[in-house]
Amino acid sequence: MKIIKIASQMQKIALKHIKDGDEIGLVPTMGALHEGHISLIAKSVKNDDITIVSIFVNPVQFCPNEDYLKYPRPAKKDKEICKKNHVDYVFMPSANDMFPSDHKTFIEIKTLQDILCGAFRINHFRGVATVVAKLFNISCADRAYFGVKDFQQLKIVEKMGKDLNFRTKIIPCSVVRERNGLALSSRNSYLSAEEKKRSLNISKSLKEAAEDFKSRDLNFVKKTVINKLKKIPGSEIDYAEIVNFDDLSPANKNTKKAVFAVAVWIGKTRLIDNIMMIKDKGRSGQ
Amino acid sequence: MKIIKIASQMQKIALKHIKDGDEIGLVPTMGALHEGHISLIAKSVKNDDITIVSIFVNPVQFCPNEDYLKYPRPAKKDKEICKKNHVDYVFMPSANDMFPSDHKTFIEIKTLQDILCGAFRINHFRGVATVVAKLFNISCADRAYFGVKDFQQLKIVEKMGKDLNFRTKIIPCSVVRERNGLALSSRNSYLSAEEKKRSLNISKSLKEAAEDFKSRDLNFVKKTVINKLKKIPGSEIDYAEIVNFDDLSPANKNTKKAVFAVAVWIGKTRLIDNIMMIKDKGRSGQ
Repeated sequence: MKIIKIASQMQKIALKHIKDGDEIGLVPTMGALHEGHISLIAKSVKNDDITIVSIFVNPVQFCPNEDYLKYPRPAKKDKEICKKNHVDYVFMPSANDMFPSDHKTFIEIKTLQDILCGAFRINHFRGVATVVAKLFNISCADRAYFGVKDFQQLKIVEKMGKDLNFRTKIIPCSVVRERNGLALSSRNSYLSAEEKKRSLNISKSLKEAAEDFKSRDLNFVKKTVINKLKKIPGSEIDYAEIVNFDDLSPANKNTKKAVFAVAVWIGKTRLIDNIMMIKDKGRSGQ
Repeated sequence: MKIIKIASQMQKIALKHIKDGDEIGLVPTMGALHEGHISLIAKSVKNDDITIVSIFVNPVQFCPNEDYLKYPRPAKKDKEICKKNHVDYVFMPSANDMFPSDHKTFIEIKTLQDILCGAFRINHFRGVATVVAKLFNISCADRAYFGVKDFQQLKIVEKMGKDLNFRTKIIPCSVVRERNGLALSSRNSYLSAEEKKRSLNISKSLKEAAEDFKSRDLNFVKKTVINKLKKIPGSEIDYAEIVNFDDLSPANKNTKKAVFAVAVWIGKTRLIDNIMMIKDKGRSGQ
């Protein structure tokens, strides 16, 4: 396994692999790798000749008041995890290499970037889209692996890839959860034991919502989850929305395939989660 | 020579060439090919194993009140010119293939896109940057050829390529002019014989400005050109600005390498032109 720190060098290596006939898989991460990331790596190692894991805490996707500085950066442990899981290249650029002070170019995906998390984290998704485009170009990837936990991010990256004709195929990967249901996240490390216990109610309420969605109306499903989230001590809801699976537009009574997406603060930690919800066949949804 | 009309097909062909070890040159055009385009094609044919000419009148770089519909589209003649000049592929997509109605992704290059032409043609350069990114991805180009006549466009494409880590190298190519000095442009076809004659004063005044720049102060150089342009019957100046060669910021007395860029209406036709201006060594510029 090789550690590459310079974008131009990574791109040169990747291009050589492409010319040699290899297919490349990219797993873009911000490090602090957990079982969720490992599941993405495993998919790439299985599908692709070459697996590149990028580890980069991307400054332009954080808002000024967010946790950019305190975001966990366990570089040594991350490298060990990559090595153990048969990664070929770890790409760990500096912030200055990726976003020098004269960087001026940003990718904007109208509408999609301004709803849900985008309404609370201003410029977050343009930062995501921009860094992902850069990583696609640097890695020359045939495939890139994204977790469904960050559902809006996945949709934005899919849209960006399609609209700009990137040849990189986006592979969505299921959420990995702890046995008790909590979605894995690098930010879970911020939670105290007590907060972690409380936050289980997020995934639990979504699971119940997916059941309710089969037969109950949208309003009921939404209100039930909101009430459950509000009962978590120290919680504050950023949003709890039911949207269309395909384009994140607001769901209505005719929506057959929806996503219930939530962002909830537990103390000082912001957690996101979502669940896909499918209407029972033969029901009107009313 | 092959004509390709579908983006995904062009990309598949291009990728195969890359895997076969070929190097690809892209000449992005809006068609109505003239000697300026032919000079770009000749450079690519010389440098690259494969030359792709894209012909696409890009709707998203036109403002609502501009000449999108009347822009010349002599497809048959363009194809003949390409064939005669040893082009390997002509990529001629439909507007719907490149920008379907659900297209939502745009590339913005702050500051650079809002000055000079960008101040008059709102959203023009985000349309340019977006289509060029698409064409880079579709063509898998190692090199792309741009005329210096569209100087701001060249700078924007260079910045976009660098900021987003496109591997495509941008090759700037000199302005091709008629013997009398008029910069070649597909839009020259809109000019009457009389207007064409009048518009010669644009390049003439710029040439004289480059001489003046060596020894006279900026204000004199700028005013002299503006006065000459104003004297052209039926002319209207959008802008006439002296900017730094590197980043298009306003030039000042210390600027050694500048560009004098102008956009002038001659009747109903908007013409742009520019000249590089270099200070005499040993002069203060005052």
